[in-house]
Amino acid sequence: MVRIAIDAMGGDLSAKAMVKGAVESLKEEGMKLLLFGEEEVLKQELSSYSYDPERIEIVPCSENISIHESPVMAIRRKKDSSLVRGMLAVKNEEADAFISAGSTGAVLAGGQLVVGREKGVYRPPLAALIPTKNGVCLLTDCGANVDAKPEWLHQFAKMGAIYMEEMLQIKNPSIGLVNIGAEEEKGNSLVKAAMQILREDTDYNFIGSVEARDIVEGNCSVVVCDAFVGNVVLKMYEGVGKMLLSEITDTMKHSGPLALLAALLLKKPLKKRLKKFDAKQYGGAPILGLKGLVIKVHGNTDGKEVTTAIKQAKEFAEKKLTKKIAEAIDFKEVEE
Amino acid sequence: MVRIAIDAMGGDLSAKAMVKGAVESLKEEGMKLLLFGEEEVLKQELSSYSYDPERIEIVPCSENISIHESPVMAIRRKKDSSLVRGMLAVKNEEADAFISAGSTGAVLAGGQLVVGREKGVYRPPLAALIPTKNGVCLLTDCGANVDAKPEWLHQFAKMGAIYMEEMLQIKNPSIGLVNIGAEEEKGNSLVKAAMQILREDTDYNFIGSVEARDIVEGNCSVVVCDAFVGNVVLKMYEGVGKMLLSEITDTMKHSGPLALLAALLLKKPLKKRLKKFDAKQYGGAPILGLKGLVIKVHGNTDGKEVTTAIKQAKEFAEKKLTKKIAEAIDFKEVEE
Repeated sequence: MVRIAIDAMGGDLSAKAMVKGAVESLKEEGMKLLLFGEEEVLKQELSSYSYDPERIEIVPCSENISIHESPVMAIRRKKDSSLVRGMLAVKNEEADAFISAGSTGAVLAGGQLVVGREKGVYRPPLAALIPTKNGVCLLTDCGANVDAKPEWLHQFAKMGAIYMEEMLQIKNPSIGLVNIGAEEEKGNSLVKAAMQILREDTDYNFIGSVEARDIVEGNCSVVVCDAFVGNVVLKMYEGVGKMLLSEITDTMKHSGPLALLAALLLKKPLKKRLKKFDAKQYGGAPILGLKGLVIKVHGNTDGKEVTTAIKQAKEFAEKKLTKKIAEAIDFKEVEE
Repeated sequence: MVRIAIDAMGGDLSAKAMVKGAVESLKEEGMKLLLFGEEEVLKQELSSYSYDPERIEIVPCSENISIHESPVMAIRRKKDSSLVRGMLAVKNEEADAFISAGSTGAVLAGGQLVVGREKGVYRPPLAALIPTKNGVCLLTDCGANVDAKPEWLHQFAKMGAIYMEEMLQIKNPSIGLVNIGAEEEKGNSLVKAAMQILREDTDYNFIGSVEARDIVEGNCSVVVCDAFVGNVVLKMYEGVGKMLLSEITDTMKHSGPLALLAALLLKKPLKKRLKKFDAKQYGGAPILGLKGLVIKVHGNTDGKEVTTAIKQAKEFAEKKLTKKIAEAIDFKEVEE
């Protein structure tokens, strides 16, 4: 029986989305959910649903961490917050995974400070599945470690490959390093050094540089970069997509009655086609390399993404990915 | 009379596009064009046009630099290439500006090695006008200097602001620093240090962090970053745009006769609306902070972009922007 801890208070819709997603995920057998948060609020939310009470347990917490707080300070001070309590459950092996839609900074800080890094892991990256023309790829690191070192990127690649192989059944997944050109001599000093380490590691399917424009074409399964670059990739994807779609919708609406008719005709097929670009359907972004799984879902999450993230956490736990990742990382006492 | 040197051999279409763009730009008065390249080829191309022979001069060169050569080696060895000869004309004040569609690496290396940096300039950035929802912004550095230092970014911002104020008549242009969040404590070490320097310089309209997703919304006029990040921004813009448009076109084509009809109805208004996202209409990307203007146009350029770049070069020269930029940079002997 997999036990999943849920920060039921985080996110813009907080308890509403988290509880909805939790209840709906119970169609899946073989797991129990622990909802961390304010007892009264959660009881109230749960009262709208019928569910097996054996499989959802409320763990009352008196505090919440907001997105406006300094993450490290909040983690240290708010010992009875849903985020810290949920993460402690993972650390103490009372839960196999933790899911939160709360402050990204607090989830990242809590992952390191409360759950803790697996032995030998330099820095746990935040990894997100992003849609491509051909499917999805894992962008790692997309938010945790700026000012990265070459050997960190090497580990991001290894952990990402294991994730894609186990969770998405992609055999020997191709790994690309984000670069500013395909030529060997291109790159900044971090990328040049990481390139060499990745080339030397023949246990993985490293295909060399990937230019930003090729990421969305889907020419590799694991896209490796430092968190600054990864965040720029993610935000540009989001920004350009949103802006272009709004330009197109706007054109349809304001180019006369024929264009409006055309818009009506295209609405359904376009919606269907572009569905694959909705990042929420892929579940949350796991932090890899911690002693237990932590998944960050979008702040503006809906119940559906939460349900997907719960399934993702269950699969991760059942496949013992925490252990497999730890085994793939060469043991080494990492200095702080 | 402004004199503009043109590398007539660079780019995918080489002489064809460059000569077409050159001849068409002659509608503009007050300038003379120097076409550097193989005499026979250029004579042949020019023979298709009627033009004032006083205003176009062929400067015969026996060598070409290809995009496959090591830029620095090529610049050092091929002294009679159209690229080196054209840049030398700028250095020797026989021309006011130089335009090339050739290898970006060679244009950047030649800018530094042949034309040379203006006194006090740490590193000349490659700056590109990119379309936004509201118009355009200048992305600087988008290709020249990876592993940048905070004070370089400060200069990129200053030079970019002067460019936007003078060339695009944007009064007191807003400057944003590419970052991974709006909060004060966000960023990598480069960005944090640059942020402080930019905040302290009250001569410019620095507005703080700009997240990648906001760049395309057009919320600032000068977008500052190191060349690695700038290249990722540029390539993501290109890649996401291309991919989304192909998905949409494909949906229209393969969703039955009604969708096809809709596509026909929308073709014209959409084309008109999306025209502003064609980067070529904004001319080329100037390298700022050199002793003379160097402009890089796209490798797959057409005549139209070349014409626009020539006008851009003429305006830059007439407004004495090289001098204005030099004056804005605090004099300082920069160590290599």
